Amino acid sequence: MTEQKQRAKWNYEEFDEVLDEIKDEGYDKVGLQGPDGIKEELLEYASKLKEHDIEPVMIGASTFGACGIADEKAERMGADALIHVGHTRFLHPEKADMDDINVYYLPYREDRDLMGVLKEHYDEIGEDETLGLVGVTQYMDRAEEAREFLEEKGYEVVDGKTGLRTTEEGQVLGCDAGAAHNISHKVDAFVFLGSGHFHPSQVSEAGKKVYVVDPYQEHIWVEPANSLDDETRAEHARVIKHKDKKKWGIVTSSKKGQNYMMAVQIAKEKLEKHGKDVYIFVEDRIFESDYKGYGIDVYVNCACPRMTKDWQDLAFVSTQALDVLDEVEINHN
Amino acid sequence: MTEQKQRAKWNYEEFDEVLDEIKDEGYDKVGLQGPDGIKEELLEYASKLKEHDIEPVMIGASTFGACGIADEKAERMGADALIHVGHTRFLHPEKADMDDINVYYLPYREDRDLMGVLKEHYDEIGEDETLGLVGVTQYMDRAEEAREFLEEKGYEVVDGKTGLRTTEEGQVLGCDAGAAHNISHKVDAFVFLGSGHFHPSQVSEAGKKVYVVDPYQEHIWVEPANSLDDETRAEHARVIKHKDKKKWGIVTSSKKGQNYMMAVQIAKEKLEKHGKDVYIFVEDRIFESDYKGYGIDVYVNCACPRMTKDWQDLAFVSTQALDVLDEVEINHN
Repeated sequence: MTEQKQRAKWNYEEFDEVLDEIKDEGYDKVGLQGPDGIKEELLEYASKLKEHDIEPVMIGASTFGACGIADEKAERMGADALIHVGHTRFLHPEKADMDDINVYYLPYREDRDLMGVLKEHYDEIGEDETLGLVGVTQYMDRAEEAREFLEEKGYEVVDGKTGLRTTEEGQVLGCDAGAAHNISHKVDAFVFLGSGHFHPSQVSEAGKKVYVVDPYQEHIWVEPANSLDDETRAEHARVIKHKDKKKWGIVTSSKKGQNYMMAVQIAKEKLEKHGKDVYIFVEDRIFESDYKGYGIDVYVNCACPRMTKDWQDLAFVSTQALDVLDEVEINHN
Repeated sequence: MTEQKQRAKWNYEEFDEVLDEIKDEGYDKVGLQGPDGIKEELLEYASKLKEHDIEPVMIGASTFGACGIADEKAERMGADALIHVGHTRFLHPEKADMDDINVYYLPYREDRDLMGVLKEHYDEIGEDETLGLVGVTQYMDRAEEAREFLEEKGYEVVDGKTGLRTTEEGQVLGCDAGAAHNISHKVDAFVFLGSGHFHPSQVSEAGKKVYVVDPYQEHIWVEPANSLDDETRAEHARVIKHKDKKKWGIVTSSKKGQNYMMAVQIAKEKLEKHGKDVYIFVEDRIFESDYKGYGIDVYVNCACPRMTKDWQDLAFVSTQALDVLDEVEINHN
C-alpha cells in the first residue's frame, strides 16, 4: 500500500494501471498528452477513459518530453489529473515543482526486437570490457534482460544510476546523460539501448565509446568517445563571432521542466558583467521566427538544451558557451 | 482618485502612464507582450522599465489580441504584472476572469492620417444617412473627432456602444462586431475607421453597408451588407460534406480569452446527440499540423473564431455551422 502510494503519480507500465488509479481517485476529467508518433494510441486511451465515464481532454500539441508537462492546459479545462504518455517522470534540475496537479507518467516501450539484435551482434563489443548499460526509456523495460545476457557472456556490467532529471536507472535523455556520466570512471565503454546519434552522442561525452544496440538498424554500431567536441567548438566560435554585439536575448520556456530560472540568472549576470544589454524572453513552444524583429542578434538558450542547434537565421548559444566571453576582448564601439 | 483606481488595469494611452502606475505599485518584474508589428516599440518599453530598475520579461510569441493574455507565462517568470500592448482590455463572453495578475492594457494607436482621408472623401457617404460610427482600436482615439466632423457635415451619428468583448465605445474586434450590431436598427449605414476586409465584413453582418475610412488605401470604400453570407454557406457545405464522419474533435485554446468552455459543451452535446464520438483538444497556439494523425477528420473551432478558415488540409468548422446537422440525414454505416 505504501509502495503503491509512493508510486502514485510516477511511472506506470500499462494504461490499465493508470486507469485503475484514476478510477480509485474518482477523477471526472483527465488530460492526455504524448508525442506525435503515438497519436492513435492516445486516442485509444481517450476512448477507454470515456468508456469509464471519465472525460478526456487531449493536449493539442506533441510533447517532446516530460519536461513539457501540460498541467496548466489540463487545469484550464477543469481536469483533475494529467496522463503524460511517452516519457518517464522528469525531475527539474533546479528543483522546481513538476506536479502541481496529479500527473501519471506512462512511458512508451517500443516493441522492436532489441534483445535479438544484442544476442546476434554482441561479439561487436570488445571482449574484456567493463560496461555501463544505458539507454532511452523506450527500451529500458528490457535493460535487466540485456544485463543478464551480457553477464552470461562474461562481461562485467556496472550498476546503473539515475541521472539528474531521470527516474529510471541507466536511462538517458537528450538533455541528461547523467546516468552515464555517474559511472563513467568505472567502465571501459557503454552499451546503449536505442537508436539515432542524438542520445548516444550525449553519452559519449562521458569520455568513453558507446556500443549502440540499435533495433532500427538491427545492428550494433559504435559512437566514438566525446563525439560532441566539434559541436562545442562550433558553438564557442559562434559566441566569439557575436562577442561585440550589445543587445543579447535570453530565451526560456514556460513549459515547467524547460523553465530554467537559475540558468537565466547566471547567463544574465555573465552577460551584464561584459557590458551587454540583456532581455529575457519566455514562451511555451519556441519557434525561431518569433524572435526576429527585435533587433537582437544573439540569443542564449535557457530552455530545452536540444534547441540550440535548431535555429538557422539567428545565433542561439548555450549558457556554457558564454564562458568564452571571459577569454576574449570585447569592443562595444 | 477613484477614477484612477477604476482605470487601473484597464486601457491606457501612454506608456509613461503605465510606468507610473507600476512604479507606484512597487513591482520588481513585469511581463511585456504585443503584436509582431511593434516589436521595436516593445523593446523600447523594456529598456524604459530597466531604466527604472523594473525587470522586463518579454513574451516570446506575437499576440493577436487581448484574448491571448500571457499572464501564466509572466507569472512563471516571477513577474507581478503584465503590460499588454496593442489591444484594449478584453471581456470574456463566458464571463471567465481575464486578469488573474495585474494586466495593464496599452492599445496601439496607428499614426496615419485617418482624419485627412475622412475630410477629403466624406462625400462618398450617401447624403441623408444616419450613421453608426465604429472602428478598430488603432483609430478609436480619433472617433470623437470623426463624429464631430460628420455631424458638422449634416449627418446624424448614433451613439456607439461597447461590444460583448470590448471596452471602447464603437470598437470592433475580429470576433466581436457587437458594437455595430447593438445599434444597427437605428442606422442606415456604418462608417468604419480602419482598413482591410476582415473587420468591415464582420460589421457588415449587422445588415447594413459599411463605409470604410481607410488610411492605408487613403480612400473611402464600401463593404456591402452581409458580405460574409457566402462564407457562412461554404461552412455549412463543409459540415454537410463531413456529416457522416463518426469521430469529431473540438478544439479550444488554453489562452484565457480563447478558452470557450460553454461553446465546447454546446458543441459536444450537439455532436453526441447526432451519434458522434467526440474528443476535446486544448492548446496554447493552434497549428493545423498538430491535429493530424489522430484519425479525426472534422474539428469544431471553439477557440479564436478567426481561425476557422485558416486550415487547409483538415476541415475546421464553427459551432454555429453545426446547426446544419439538425437538418440533414446522417448515416454512420
